[in-house]
Amino acid sequence: MTLNEHNERQLYLNGKIIPESEAKISLFDYGFQEGYGVFDLARTFNGRPFKLKEHVDRLFRSLCYVRIDPGLSSEEMEKISLQVLEMNENLRGEKEDYWIAQTISGGGNWPLPPTGPTVAIYCIPLPFVRWAKYYETGVHAVITCIRRVPSECVDSKAKVLSRMNLQLAQIEANRVDPGAYSLLLDLKGNITEGTGLNFFIVRDGELLTSTPYNILCGVSRATVMDLAKELGIKVKECDFQPYDVYTADEAFYTTTSRCIVPVTQVDGLTVSDGSPGPVTFKLLKAWSRLVGVDIVEQALSHLENSQLKA
Amino acid sequence: MTLNEHNERQLYLNGKIIPESEAKISLFDYGFQEGYGVFDLARTFNGRPFKLKEHVDRLFRSLCYVRIDPGLSSEEMEKISLQVLEMNENLRGEKEDYWIAQTISGGGNWPLPPTGPTVAIYCIPLPFVRWAKYYETGVHAVITCIRRVPSECVDSKAKVLSRMNLQLAQIEANRVDPGAYSLLLDLKGNITEGTGLNFFIVRDGELLTSTPYNILCGVSRATVMDLAKELGIKVKECDFQPYDVYTADEAFYTTTSRCIVPVTQVDGLTVSDGSPGPVTFKLLKAWSRLVGVDIVEQALSHLENSQLKA
Amino acid sequence: MTLNEHNERQLYLNGKIIPESEAKISLFDYGFQEGYGVFDLARTFNGRPFKLKEHVDRLFRSLCYVRIDPGLSSEEMEKISLQVLEMNENLRGEKEDYWIAQTISGGGNWPLPPTGPTVAIYCIPLPFVRWAKYYETGVHAVITCIRRVPSECVDSKAKVLSRMNLQLAQIEANRVDPGAYSLLLDLKGNITEGTGLNFFIVRDGELLTSTPYNILCGVSRATVMDLAKELGIKVKECDFQPYDVYTADEAFYTTTSRCIVPVTQVDGLTVSDGSPGPVTFKLLKAWSRLVGVDIVEQALSHLENSQLKA
Amino acid sequence: MTLNEHNERQLYLNGKIIPESEAKISLFDYGFQEGYGVFDLARTFNGRPFKLKEHVDRLFRSLCYVRIDPGLSSEEMEKISLQVLEMNENLRGEKEDYWIAQTISGGGNWPLPPTGPTVAIYCIPLPFVRWAKYYETGVHAVITCIRRVPSECVDSKAKVLSRMNLQLAQIEANRVDPGAYSLLLDLKGNITEGTGLNFFIVRDGELLTSTPYNILCGVSRATVMDLAKELGIKVKECDFQPYDVYTADEAFYTTTSRCIVPVTQVDGLTVSDGSPGPVTFKLLKAWSRLVGVDIVEQALSHLENSQLKA
Amino acid sequence: MTLNEHNERQLYLNGKIIPESEAKISLFDYGFQEGYGVFDLARTFNGRPFKLKEHVDRLFRSLCYVRIDPGLSSEEMEKISLQVLEMNENLRGEKEDYWIAQTISGGGNWPLPPTGPTVAIYCIPLPFVRWAKYYETGVHAVITCIRRVPSECVDSKAKVLSRMNLQLAQIEANRVDPGAYSLLLDLKGNITEGTGLNFFIVRDGELLTSTPYNILCGVSRATVMDLAKELGIKVKECDFQPYDVYTADEAFYTTTSRCIVPVTQVDGLTVSDGSPGPVTFKLLKAWSRLVGVDIVEQALSHLENSQLKA
Amino acid sequence: MTLNEHNERQLYLNGKIIPESEAKISLFDYGFQEGYGVFDLARTFNGRPFKLKEHVDRLFRSLCYVRIDPGLSSEEMEKISLQVLEMNENLRGEKEDYWIAQTISGGGNWPLPPTGPTVAIYCIPLPFVRWAKYYETGVHAVITCIRRVPSECVDSKAKVLSRMNLQLAQIEANRVDPGAYSLLLDLKGNITEGTGLNFFIVRDGELLTSTPYNILCGVSRATVMDLAKELGIKVKECDFQPYDVYTADEAFYTTTSRCIVPVTQVDGLTVSDGSPGPVTFKLLKAWSRLVGVDIVEQALSHLENSQLKA
Repeated sequence: MTLNEHNERQLYLNGKIIPESEAKISLFDYGFQEGYGVFDLARTFNGRPFKLKEHVDRLFRSLCYVRIDPGLSSEEMEKISLQVLEMNENLRGEKEDYWIAQTISGGGNWPLPPTGPTVAIYCIPLPFVRWAKYYETGVHAVITCIRRVPSECVDSKAKVLSRMNLQLAQIEANRVDPGAYSLLLDLKGNITEGTGLNFFIVRDGELLTSTPYNILCGVSRATVMDLAKELGIKVKECDFQPYDVYTADEAFYTTTSRCIVPVTQVDGLTVSDGSPGPVTFKLLKAWSRLVGVDIVEQALSHLENSQLKA
Repeated sequence: MTLNEHNERQLYLNGKIIPESEAKISLFDYGFQEGYGVFDLARTFNGRPFKLKEHVDRLFRSLCYVRIDPGLSSEEMEKISLQVLEMNENLRGEKEDYWIAQTISGGGNWPLPPTGPTVAIYCIPLPFVRWAKYYETGVHAVITCIRRVPSECVDSKAKVLSRMNLQLAQIEANRVDPGAYSLLLDLKGNITEGTGLNFFIVRDGELLTSTPYNILCGVSRATVMDLAKELGIKVKECDFQPYDVYTADEAFYTTTSRCIVPVTQVDGLTVSDGSPGPVTFKLLKAWSRLVGVDIVEQALSHLENSQLKA
Repeated sequence: MTLNEHNERQLYLNGKIIPESEAKISLFDYGFQEGYGVFDLARTFNGRPFKLKEHVDRLFRSLCYVRIDPGLSSEEMEKISLQVLEMNENLRGEKEDYWIAQTISGGGNWPLPPTGPTVAIYCIPLPFVRWAKYYETGVHAVITCIRRVPSECVDSKAKVLSRMNLQLAQIEANRVDPGAYSLLLDLKGNITEGTGLNFFIVRDGELLTSTPYNILCGVSRATVMDLAKELGIKVKECDFQPYDVYTADEAFYTTTSRCIVPVTQVDGLTVSDGSPGPVTFKLLKAWSRLVGVDIVEQALSHLENSQLKA
Repeated sequence: MTLNEHNERQLYLNGKIIPESEAKISLFDYGFQEGYGVFDLARTFNGRPFKLKEHVDRLFRSLCYVRIDPGLSSEEMEKISLQVLEMNENLRGEKEDYWIAQTISGGGNWPLPPTGPTVAIYCIPLPFVRWAKYYETGVHAVITCIRRVPSECVDSKAKVLSRMNLQLAQIEANRVDPGAYSLLLDLKGNITEGTGLNFFIVRDGELLTSTPYNILCGVSRATVMDLAKELGIKVKECDFQPYDVYTADEAFYTTTSRCIVPVTQVDGLTVSDGSPGPVTFKLLKAWSRLVGVDIVEQALSHLENSQLKA
Repeated sequence: MTLNEHNERQLYLNGKIIPESEAKISLFDYGFQEGYGVFDLARTFNGRPFKLKEHVDRLFRSLCYVRIDPGLSSEEMEKISLQVLEMNENLRGEKEDYWIAQTISGGGNWPLPPTGPTVAIYCIPLPFVRWAKYYETGVHAVITCIRRVPSECVDSKAKVLSRMNLQLAQIEANRVDPGAYSLLLDLKGNITEGTGLNFFIVRDGELLTSTPYNILCGVSRATVMDLAKELGIKVKECDFQPYDVYTADEAFYTTTSRCIVPVTQVDGLTVSDGSPGPVTFKLLKAWSRLVGVDIVEQALSHLENSQLKA
Repeated sequence: MTLNEHNERQLYLNGKIIPESEAKISLFDYGFQEGYGVFDLARTFNGRPFKLKEHVDRLFRSLCYVRIDPGLSSEEMEKISLQVLEMNENLRGEKEDYWIAQTISGGGNWPLPPTGPTVAIYCIPLPFVRWAKYYETGVHAVITCIRRVPSECVDSKAKVLSRMNLQLAQIEANRVDPGAYSLLLDLKGNITEGTGLNFFIVRDGELLTSTPYNILCGVSRATVMDLAKELGIKVKECDFQPYDVYTADEAFYTTTSRCIVPVTQVDGLTVSDGSPGPVTFKLLKAWSRLVGVDIVEQALSHLENSQLKA
């Protein structure tokens, strides 16, 4: 593979490097027809991938769970991911960063001849504009009627393509409070996670986050837990319920792209005084130090650009 | 639209008629990336579609549930489906029949510009060879560890693209007893359905089938219920458990493509004497009369062809 | 007891007839401190009580369940209720009607000396203005996160004073969609009832309503079931889920005061064409005939008055 | 506000100081009609309030959960509570102590004009006679059929007026074993709490108590956990079941008024040797030291008085 | 086999006819060590077995469920049962009747050499004295904390030897109200059955009984349902809860030995007026006619004898 | 009691010492007819009992739970157990060891006269041949459809004779994968235990094992937890699900007879590289040191003998 000489992003699809605009899969692909596949995605900070290995390892656990053999080792998967990043580095804009994603589906389906799995490895720019303001204002959260799928049906620890459950939750959150993020309960009434987001509250100076019972064990979640430990902030994985969120001192989501998103309102109730809290910021700063990028500043810079243009 | 003059099937994709082999969707489509979409599929008998309106109506209920507006009315959806069938009629082989399917996904997703939903309408030949023998031998069923997703997460009455739950069940069934079909319990331990299949047992001359609590309300299921009524066979929708299946007089699946599939073994236990039962056959014959096609004979004819060729 | 000669409503409290404004209970009453008590309420049509005996019978079942002996027989309770109505009849305005209510709490509590139960029997005018417009526009319904208390904790078939669960649901409904009524699921995800309301949907010309598993068995619910029978409309008590409500042909609540309230939107989805449906109206008309009062006209007349005044 | 010069206790009700015997609320108050309100109560030791701030803080969390704004800040609520105590101090008998309570309900309800919430702040003497003997004999506990309301319906962490669930449990306990206290399971079969009581067992020298999943997080519970830590006794918050209680070395309840109540029989099974255990006593003594009052001696002194009088 | 010439009952054990007192099984039998086995039992009326075939058929469904092959056909099992009855007929006392039972366990277990299953067929006299009085006074019922094992663990429709669950319930019932029978809820809070007893309530002239979800489908239960049909009494199989039992018009158990046992108190609440109800008696009479034995008179005659002797 | 002079093992049955072959219980024993009883069993290492007291203590907790009084104190039970071992020591073969078991059932049942409980204390040789090879190859595990009985029905912490649930699971495991051991989920989908086996996984160098929610708290499980602590291996009791097992680094069962059994395949998925892992072996070695017997070597020696003979 050679460096990307085009002004379009290139990606890996089933062994070939092709332009993003030509990245098509068959209508009959198992991933499209049955949601039968898995994916994972890391991000870069100033172009450097963050915990890529952790993400690829989790991808392989997801593959194991759904019993797809991608035909590549985890080392190969990681290596190609790095190559894809490298070949698109010249297209990364100032203050921009990439998601680096692997998507593996079950592949060919009737009336297609059976094929091996579909393997796509690609990077796409982070749309900071969507969430930048939340570092300042915090985002709203809505605890949805839609509950998180239990492990007896599909384990949330596997990052599968069948995400209707999470999509329905996000649609509900947005209907109830436009712009809000979802927060799902499990079938026992415990807080789990949002759509693509893990969730933390701060109470009496400690962090509380859901147990791995019905959630994706986020790499960002683990990063926050590590940073907290370094900062001397106690972290507790435990069951908690809406009451605890409504009465929390602070609350935030974690997710690969945004790292940490402060939450300032839940179900119409203001969290503390309605602005992102001190523990949340301390963690954001520690993360910024860890990756050598001011996470908030980077996001906000995009907002300014977009506002300038508008 | 004109008749199909090619020797390749044509289909409808987002307003255009294109050859099946060119039917591609973007890697970034919401249907592929998130399993966010719905589908439905009817079949033809000797080329004539069966209960197409019922299927399209259910499709629109699914669309309503996931809040996708396909940009077409149900009448238009049905009309285009008929046109797609018509333009591919000349390619339908002897004793062949078609699935006629509509798949609608959420459409464009980042980094794609947001588009309307992806709408595909297509027909593909029924692979009778896969199941023909089961009319004679019956199929085996395996009650899986994997449970059916509850309505609080995603309602099984909506036919969504996110089918990982059903795929995991089928993989488990096939692992435990190669060639067997899955049979899923709900979270309370009641029999629900198989992967793309509804389920009935016969006990003391009566039919028992699951309530609509956690199942797709199959058009074939409704057809069997109607046929039974005509034949004077009582049908009861109720909760029942593995015990009832193990001790049933007969058991069968229903599904669009195969109509009725006799079950002769469940979890290694022989159902009755191990061959398809009389009530099952009576229903199959009534269905054959209804559609003017000998369902069993049609399927078996393909088996013979395939065996002759082999 | 003599007729009410005052221009203030009189009521029965612990054996005495007193003016409504003096109807006070102790701060330390078990009903206030512990929500330990039950109640029931019927309404009048043109001054005549409707199914009062059914309501009083249900009251005594509630008393049995919570093990309070009111010190009155059901016949006495009914008789005093009629007397209370009678003594306030002269204060009933034109086109007005009364709720006639019995509330019995556990009575005295520390530091009060233990007393017998508190028994209040009173009638208050129906505030038609609150709901009159819904006969024309329909009301919105919101399926709440808050689930109905299961029978293992407190049986919903008993009409108890501890209604925090129902209040939380109504607050949630109103937060999500101002003016909307609540619709609660049970812990298994089935539709139960609203806050003081039973619920029906119409599908293919049939009525569906929840089983008595986790609901108050409303007298109005029973009235609708009887009226439907007379009108040749089939009624099915069964489990159903949000999907069924979203895709219903019609939907309505039943409740003592309003009889039937058409529902035209659920969770932001329009029910059918967004206006009250034909089956709903047929039932409302039949009910009006039954009680000799045009239910809709009566309610709307209040609206006009109130708008004239405003 | 001035000191209480009367020989009747005075209390605060909606901004006014009035004698206890005149403390009445309307029949139509939301608190009485719907159990819509919250409360909290601390106690004094030798007249000095214990952890009043913790109780008021919990009250405000309850208010947040049920979305009532009391119209007072938590500081004001605490201040008035202290004033109420002060003005009734001269009426506190020898060896007596007070509960100091705040009750806030939703206030006016139809046909009342809508008002702000009802706010009552009052102190009442602790009825030591009721429980004094249990410090010597221990109390019996009955694990009830009635289960604790789950957080999906009303969160037990909020101290609401709707306490029918807890009342039913206490009635059951008393029916099964007269004088016994209740012990409720949650819907999964775990031990939660009693009616107004938290619960602990001692096993191999360690304390076990329920997680905050379905219980009120008692201030007394927290006090015991702190005292245990100081005494070098390990405390574990975890799920445990009736088996663990039946086979425990010791068991006790905690509650504001009684601090700690030893349990000597559960479901007819003797706990250990049938008398209060050494760890229970060690904790009681440590608590007595903490508050400067011999808790057991104080309670028993009332028993003697009452027996002398009788 | 020849007629029993001894004055001791003879039974069938593993192919041999032996005296009852010598009926021993190994300490290491799977039935004893693991509760691994099934059984069924019918009774005689005036020496004639009642619905023996139905019982044996159910036994074979139980055997199928636990996957034991008894080495005998159902016809052989029935035939030997009749022979055992015949050889003990001369020992049947006046007004006496027999249980006729089949017990099949898994047989030999380490350190025993593996053997085939243990098969015992035996008849024992019905101990009428134990329950005779209940026909006049009714029995008390206690709804137990102990819940019925769900079908996901062991299906209650199979009559297995592992009856600890039912024993614990009976012990609890007897502890709470000495002499009372148990009544178990399922895990969802619905009434199921007692220890070896099915359960009915009468409401508004109709019979209600549990669905087969979590109960043994009793032959006596079916008999009552048939008799009711003949008597024009409607029967409904449905979910119901303690509230429905507390407020029922009548209640009774059914079981092979006693046919019908009136219930006159449940959880300390009197059912109706505290004496067996008219519908209960109507059914008992119809049953007596069916079998040509006055069921109540037969039982009471034993009571008199026993009282005479005492 | 005197030393065993026979060449047959002797055991204790209801106060008598008798030869094993004469150890019979009545057909009508409560243990056989109802599975009403409990048991426990320890093992010897080189003839010396291991943690016998812990086993007897657990036996008495089981007895307490099922409310059987064995008529012996725990000290007597332990003493007789030692005597039984002693009198059979001369029959213990080279490299052989004993299970030492106590089984107590409810005793006599109709038509037997009511007796005290049946008490059996006996030792039987460990059949090493059955499992020896698993130390080298590992065993397969199958996560069964059959779920572990919840504590609301019968608490798994009590070791009861009613083991149908565990037997059904083992039958299922063996049907799905001949020779495999069972692994049961609880009703919430968490891993619990196997049939007579506790379960551990190794992840990132730490041990994870189920909480005591729905399992027997094994003495071997506790031993592994102690050994791990000594070896500096962290142990976590927590809820985990099939996903965690499928993606574990190592997995093993613990049980009295075998101590530790490595697991190398679960549901057809290879655990790590398919051979027993290093942490598992480290624990096995530590255990061997603790008891002075090379556990693996002892078991394998029996395999060789048996193969030599074969």
